[in-house]
Amino acid sequence: MFSSSEYSILTESDLREFTRSVFLKIGCSADHATLASDVLLAADLRGIDSHGVARLSGYVRLWQKGRINTVPNIKIIRQKQSTATIDADGALGLVSAPFAMQLAIERSGKFGSGMIAVGNSNHFGIAGYHAMMALEFDMIGFAMTNASPLVAPTRSKERMLGTNPMAYAIPAGKYDPVVIDLATSTAANGKLEIAQRKKKTVPQGWIQTKDGEQTIDPNALKEGGALLPLGSFEDQGSHKGFALSALVDIFSGVLSGANFGPWVPPFVSFLDVLPNLPGKGLGHFVGAMEVDGFIETNEFKRKMDQWIERFKNSQLVSESKPVIIPGEPETMQKAERALNGIPLIDSVVADLTSMAEMLKLDHPFI
Amino acid sequence: MFSSSEYSILTESDLREFTRSVFLKIGCSADHATLASDVLLAADLRGIDSHGVARLSGYVRLWQKGRINTVPNIKIIRQKQSTATIDADGALGLVSAPFAMQLAIERSGKFGSGMIAVGNSNHFGIAGYHAMMALEFDMIGFAMTNASPLVAPTRSKERMLGTNPMAYAIPAGKYDPVVIDLATSTAANGKLEIAQRKKKTVPQGWIQTKDGEQTIDPNALKEGGALLPLGSFEDQGSHKGFALSALVDIFSGVLSGANFGPWVPPFVSFLDVLPNLPGKGLGHFVGAMEVDGFIETNEFKRKMDQWIERFKNSQLVSESKPVIIPGEPETMQKAERALNGIPLIDSVVADLTSMAEMLKLDHPFI
Repeated sequence: MFSSSEYSILTESDLREFTRSVFLKIGCSADHATLASDVLLAADLRGIDSHGVARLSGYVRLWQKGRINTVPNIKIIRQKQSTATIDADGALGLVSAPFAMQLAIERSGKFGSGMIAVGNSNHFGIAGYHAMMALEFDMIGFAMTNASPLVAPTRSKERMLGTNPMAYAIPAGKYDPVVIDLATSTAANGKLEIAQRKKKTVPQGWIQTKDGEQTIDPNALKEGGALLPLGSFEDQGSHKGFALSALVDIFSGVLSGANFGPWVPPFVSFLDVLPNLPGKGLGHFVGAMEVDGFIETNEFKRKMDQWIERFKNSQLVSESKPVIIPGEPETMQKAERALNGIPLIDSVVADLTSMAEMLKLDHPFI
Repeated sequence: MFSSSEYSILTESDLREFTRSVFLKIGCSADHATLASDVLLAADLRGIDSHGVARLSGYVRLWQKGRINTVPNIKIIRQKQSTATIDADGALGLVSAPFAMQLAIERSGKFGSGMIAVGNSNHFGIAGYHAMMALEFDMIGFAMTNASPLVAPTRSKERMLGTNPMAYAIPAGKYDPVVIDLATSTAANGKLEIAQRKKKTVPQGWIQTKDGEQTIDPNALKEGGALLPLGSFEDQGSHKGFALSALVDIFSGVLSGANFGPWVPPFVSFLDVLPNLPGKGLGHFVGAMEVDGFIETNEFKRKMDQWIERFKNSQLVSESKPVIIPGEPETMQKAERALNGIPLIDSVVADLTSMAEMLKLDHPFI
């Protein structure tokens, strides 16, 4: 482990092994612990630091509160040939979402596509991980989830929706796959936390105060404010971001029998679950579509390469800022971090260290 | 017909009959003419004036140029159980997209879901029309299409993408269905045209100049500028709008064997199609999913009612501005216009009148 005054660098294998030991300690099976660690490490490797091991102690605290079942009986509760609904039995979303994706891939292999709703689940990590499971089968994969309410609909000052991400993974030929993975809010909560820590302001359009006024103070969220939907303001199309977030909420929450809107159970264990819930846990919606069900796979990949090349070569506003193909920065980050290690900021290291001590586990932190 | 100095009001039936006569005149079958008119009238009734009869002469001009085939042999060219690709044979998208939706609905009835790519097609009107076809079967419907390049990717000054809309229609119980129908650009081109006509500026974040600079001049688009993706600027998440537009382009264009990106044939007949096209025409992607394949239909509808009520009752920033459920304004507009008629601005009336005279058709305009 390398350590500076602000962060430490861990090897992927050290961090993976430690993460796995935590999931084993809280009662996960060996398979589930391996899988859950893989989802978290994928986030850290891809540079989505807010959704990797930085969240590990959060999952543990939810388990301590009895809100995560580490020995779940995940089962299909309703199905047709190309659709199904899964009850995750309170599982880690890190486990139930890959289960659902495997089912989506199997149905896609048989019928061309598979669309799976998952209810009674928990936070599933990065959406991109699940969507990307389809790639090795030459399928297009997607994954979405609802989440703790932090986002206000256009014209509202109330937190009604999560950052409700959606991810799509699309195979290419000689280039890396196109991987779209985005929160339907203007900014993800993790970016606000970075600004809070560094005592910086945030750009216009990320958040509003508890009274619904514009602000650039990242602390406004803690003080009862809300994140804004993609588009930020009504004149700039925030009603579209709201509609996309609503779509994720309805597909993930209503269709699966999970909670939706403001009833989605909060990720942080110190906030209580609301009374009179309309559903169970939170929900995901995932799917796969076999490319070959639409077009010859090699032709598709060749055309995706042409698509990628054409967009990379589009005329730039500034020669120093290239057009970014969705997924490209994460793929580069992964190659770099797999080689040189994963940086963790001091507050995350301190949090993981105290959690390891609480759980009486060996840990790789100095 | 009522007429003022700025607009005339036509009855739905007069406008429908006239529109149908135009499609018949350019060679459509009776069924196709009825269907194509229904799609355009749905736009006018729902208040999406830019996509209704205002576009009728545009379709006619494309037909005159030989770019629309009014006697198409629309056929399935590849399929699995729950997926298919359709070659629209150069048809009006107003005809090929409903054909594809019918197939999606049929497959959804058999297998739970149906996902259909459509290539070799043309402009399909409002996306919402096609998505809503699924509603009467208690299915969720969706439709997306690529379109004439007008939108620059984040960091580019080149028009590489259409306003690439996506629509989702979701059944509810006692309330109207939730109908999401949005361009993945910050603003649709129609809104810019209104500002140009009224000689007004547009809000920040709608367009950039040909050099990629911010502007509020709606004429910048005509002068080689570009529309901006939802999010408008990089700090406000425009890369997400770009990614969503890319998704629509890849699903509609690449998967279907149609053109994609800057190669999508322009809607306006005075712009030529580019050489060395990678595909045929433009493309759509539509689908349907049976609610019953995931959850008991009445339970879903009851929960959708709860979802709608809770969002309508969320705390408002300003008491005079209610939260809008997606699709609500269009449903209200439709009820009003079905009763009181459809207003057409003078320039549209003049355009339709001269087209009627050119085609030697009776028309309802004074």
